[in-house]
Amino acid sequence: MQRFINDPDQVVEDTVKGFVKAHSDILRVGQNPRVIVARDAPVAGKVGVVTGGGSGHEPGFMGYTGRNMLDAVAVGELFSSPTAKSFQDAFREANGGAGVVCLYGNYAGDNMNVKMAIRLAAKEGIEVATVVANDDVCSAPPHEREKRRGVAGEIFMWKIGSARASQGGSLEEVRIAAQKAIDNCRSIGVGLGPCTLPAVGHPNFQIEPGTMEVGIGHHGEPGVRVEPLKTAQEIARDMCKIVLDDHNLPTGTEVAVLVSGLGATPLNELYILNDTIETEITGRGLVIHKTYVGNYFTSLEMVGATLTVMALDDETKALLAVDVDCTMKL
Amino acid sequence: MQRFINDPDQVVEDTVKGFVKAHSDILRVGQNPRVIVARDAPVAGKVGVVTGGGSGHEPGFMGYTGRNMLDAVAVGELFSSPTAKSFQDAFREANGGAGVVCLYGNYAGDNMNVKMAIRLAAKEGIEVATVVANDDVCSAPPHEREKRRGVAGEIFMWKIGSARASQGGSLEEVRIAAQKAIDNCRSIGVGLGPCTLPAVGHPNFQIEPGTMEVGIGHHGEPGVRVEPLKTAQEIARDMCKIVLDDHNLPTGTEVAVLVSGLGATPLNELYILNDTIETEITGRGLVIHKTYVGNYFTSLEMVGATLTVMALDDETKALLAVDVDCTMKL
Repeated sequence: MQRFINDPDQVVEDTVKGFVKAHSDILRVGQNPRVIVARDAPVAGKVGVVTGGGSGHEPGFMGYTGRNMLDAVAVGELFSSPTAKSFQDAFREANGGAGVVCLYGNYAGDNMNVKMAIRLAAKEGIEVATVVANDDVCSAPPHEREKRRGVAGEIFMWKIGSARASQGGSLEEVRIAAQKAIDNCRSIGVGLGPCTLPAVGHPNFQIEPGTMEVGIGHHGEPGVRVEPLKTAQEIARDMCKIVLDDHNLPTGTEVAVLVSGLGATPLNELYILNDTIETEITGRGLVIHKTYVGNYFTSLEMVGATLTVMALDDETKALLAVDVDCTMKL
Repeated sequence: MQRFINDPDQVVEDTVKGFVKAHSDILRVGQNPRVIVARDAPVAGKVGVVTGGGSGHEPGFMGYTGRNMLDAVAVGELFSSPTAKSFQDAFREANGGAGVVCLYGNYAGDNMNVKMAIRLAAKEGIEVATVVANDDVCSAPPHEREKRRGVAGEIFMWKIGSARASQGGSLEEVRIAAQKAIDNCRSIGVGLGPCTLPAVGHPNFQIEPGTMEVGIGHHGEPGVRVEPLKTAQEIARDMCKIVLDDHNLPTGTEVAVLVSGLGATPLNELYILNDTIETEITGRGLVIHKTYVGNYFTSLEMVGATLTVMALDDETKALLAVDVDCTMKL
């Protein structure tokens, strides 16, 4: 592999060090070196907002720490859940006395470690509420939505939950706002090329050249079909059909659209996808309120893209508009 | 190639369409479809700020259009200069009656087309001043700095020139501010993998696996040496040595640092580079004022990274801090 790394076993340590050095104006490393904390956290009287997840999805997770965004983020190994201890330490760093909401993705390791961390935090007197993201349409059928994984819709969940907290919302109000955000998100991923964990040294799954995997997960989890690589227009239409059929929104609904690269797909190709995505979404009578295009949630050097569509109302639109200071433009 | 494209000959058209759809809150397409214009441009009485360049460097060029940033951007074919007509049309779109400054990179095609466009604009009564970026250290020796190419330092030139214009600077004041910004920038690129123009179908240069090209240009222009792929730490040290030896800044100088991916390098690897870059820069007694890490100026799906170091003073620090609204967080 042609990479900028040092010791393959130290990729996360080195990433975190370089990350904190770059963004010391908005965040810092916690007492636990696997916790990133917003510079001014905890804010007394404010509900703390926490997430955590495996590394390799940058700016996913830690890049969304900051003012009016996440207060603390637990950092896992590449593609692995943070430990219960890291989640617990993140809760403590975020806790301003009004409790903590943990907004995380639906993966077995994260579910287990967050639950353990909540029990540990309770002994310290920290109350923790949770919202579990499950926006990935292809990871389970509609009647088993609780089995779906969380993907880039988490960014909207974080932004809206964090905004509610910054406005003085109670723990329950913040939880409800974040839950509503993710309930209104649907996402899909399409993979054109695999990625390799540096310490493993070979791709963790295969995508044959000339083919693509529709519905792929953020760690190469199999999608709903492998098929010949189509044009961007055809792919974007397929992505919209899968997301919007599942979403089933009334005509006139306002939506936010997020087109994210998976790591090694250049930005111009994401814009090419967005051209058709916009046509498809507006063609269904939906109204695009705001569009985000870029590498917002990645998977190492995977080639591919995700589409997230969030249905909005006046409340979520207002929360989405709250000014934030994290590493990404939101 | 595993790409999201339609017709390989329509990559730029499709990119621009998807780009304008995504960012219609801050920009629009000009009367010439190869010109992107800030939503509120031209601003009466303000110096217009224009750039232009080949496509394939996104967000390079058009992504920096917006409030307090570029007023208009001429869009070229992939890796090719915009036409003189497109530059001329960009000048017209940006002109608020106080003249236009064109801040562009030192490439033969751009030099020729900007010169032609200036003559055409003069006939319309539009005065155009220019600054030519030449921050790429490895593209010519120090005594031939006028031969050096412009690379990611252009982003600092645009931001500082645009900020001066937004503060009501005259054409000459804006030109001087932008010239000072680029004079204080030094950049270097390291390539680990090539890129392919979609309509050509094979890489436009080679980088053998296990090797890297130090000093590579944004279109695969040869660097100063090809050598075995080293660790991120060794590469970052080499990049800093080349940039800082050329820069030769007094101890205590404040600098802005920009670490940009070239398209297919994941963000975590840029942070790994930044860890050592910060150590090297501060180790020379320089003071890092602000760091930017991300895909700020790319080359399709090239694997690699660039480092730009800009020396600051109170004036440039203040201009760098001006709030902007473009597609990137600056």
